[in-house]
Amino acid sequence: MTTFVFRRRLTVEYGHCDPAGVAFMSQLYQYFDTSTWLLFEAALGLKAQDIMATLAIMPLVDVRADCRKPLRFGDAVEIASRISEFRRSSFNVEHRITIDGELAVEGGETRVWAVRDKDDGEKISSRPIPPEIVARFS
Amino acid sequence: MTTFVFRRRLTVEYGHCDPAGVAFMSQLYQYFDTSTWLLFEAALGLKAQDIMATLAIMPLVDVRADCRKPLRFGDAVEIASRISEFRRSSFNVEHRITIDGELAVEGGETRVWAVRDKDDGEKISSRPIPPEIVARFS
Amino acid sequence: MTTFVFRRRLTVEYGHCDPAGVAFMSQLYQYFDTSTWLLFEAALGLKAQDIMATLAIMPLVDVRADCRKPLRFGDAVEIASRISEFRRSSFNVEHRITIDGELAVEGGETRVWAVRDKDDGEKISSRPIPPEIVARFS
Amino acid sequence: MTTFVFRRRLTVEYGHCDPAGVAFMSQLYQYFDTSTWLLFEAALGLKAQDIMATLAIMPLVDVRADCRKPLRFGDAVEIASRISEFRRSSFNVEHRITIDGELAVEGGETRVWAVRDKDDGEKISSRPIPPEIVARFS
Repeated sequence: MTTFVFRRRLTVEYGHCDPAGVAFMSQLYQYFDTSTWLLFEAALGLKAQDIMATLAIMPLVDVRADCRKPLRFGDAVEIASRISEFRRSSFNVEHRITIDGELAVEGGETRVWAVRDKDDGEKISSRPIPPEIVARFS
Repeated sequence: MTTFVFRRRLTVEYGHCDPAGVAFMSQLYQYFDTSTWLLFEAALGLKAQDIMATLAIMPLVDVRADCRKPLRFGDAVEIASRISEFRRSSFNVEHRITIDGELAVEGGETRVWAVRDKDDGEKISSRPIPPEIVARFS
Repeated sequence: MTTFVFRRRLTVEYGHCDPAGVAFMSQLYQYFDTSTWLLFEAALGLKAQDIMATLAIMPLVDVRADCRKPLRFGDAVEIASRISEFRRSSFNVEHRITIDGELAVEGGETRVWAVRDKDDGEKISSRPIPPEIVARFS
Repeated sequence: MTTFVFRRRLTVEYGHCDPAGVAFMSQLYQYFDTSTWLLFEAALGLKAQDIMATLAIMPLVDVRADCRKPLRFGDAVEIASRISEFRRSSFNVEHRITIDGELAVEGGETRVWAVRDKDDGEKISSRPIPPEIVARFS
């Protein structure tokens, strides 16, 4: 478990919600994805586009979410994200969405540290995560 | 594991895809959610709105997806969905997205069989799943 | 043209963008819709949910957008929104999205000032916009 | 006004709808965009990806929608799309969404016939629409 945590606050928007008036899971993943990029931006001091262009893309291979409490339109939430594990060429991100300090959603992603093939942009291959990258998260 | 399987075919749309040209996880969940409702419609012979109005709403409490192969714009995919487990008042749905028979995404949802409180529409409480509902899936 | 302008800044997120790497029109509308609610919140000093519950819902009847310059992942944009016209029971909202001061998207919405029927929540009927509401925008 | 009309039927999905229980404008645009690509696929006998790769991309420059009747979760709708005008290097598409034959949404898009710069993929330039393309729509 790394120690670098990225936190942001956001308000649940009308269009994020479904007919039950709560944030639809598709939108919760949008929150996760953006928080993952902001976490890397904050840790590495680089813009996400530059990370993708010069270091690695990070395709999602696994995602999970445990929804304990619905997020409603207008709710002010906090999302705290951190890398829970770095492996050789993949890593786990953990996201905790809270409302007034109470845990509402616990999410996780597994992503691969990968680069695109120079000759065939649709081919990607994993790479070992450089130790100097890992170091920025603790 | 129940035996009733609902299958549908769809083509990945342009707006489902992200800058990498592949269906974004938010969209994959949209595929899951719609397949779950279509599975219930097929098994119960009722429209989803009628299921919600007369039997139960089925709030999501857990979701997971294992993404093995990206879905690209224009890909014709098949989604096969079934209930993998019924418990007293919750159940698991399994979704398998294949491209030309090859597994691309394996997903799962846990949902609760619940009703809204008559006096406070924001309050919901779980209910035992009626055996005659369970019977329709085998 | 009213004089009250609501401005906000946001950064285009990865999941807002399509395979061309630019914010998809669906997402631009999401920006418009949220800005309209934030404009009313700022002008009336009420939360959007309270506006909907106690004053009016504002169903969309017309929308238009003129896209001059694409918004790319990571772009920091400003959205300036104001009511361009109040009529008896409908109004127009104008949204201008700029990047570094340069106009990228010009959008407009027409919405109706309406209430839900007490007996049939699916029925809505328009109402005259109260002059004290209009006054808050100048 | 060209004579080639592309029609498709779809059912409004749960996740397409907002807290009012009706298809959100963002989703209506998703319907428009996909119908435009399907219209070109049908008229040209080519897959959308091949059209983009070998003929032209068609960036959106203008969109408008007139929403007369809400689309609700579960509604079976028909979308009829056609090119309403071809100009030198741009064209208009018209979309009519009907429910049981009754017009619900009338939409329009203006798009440019364009190609990407070979050296700088972010630069695009318009091209005259070939007459043999135009001919396929009548």
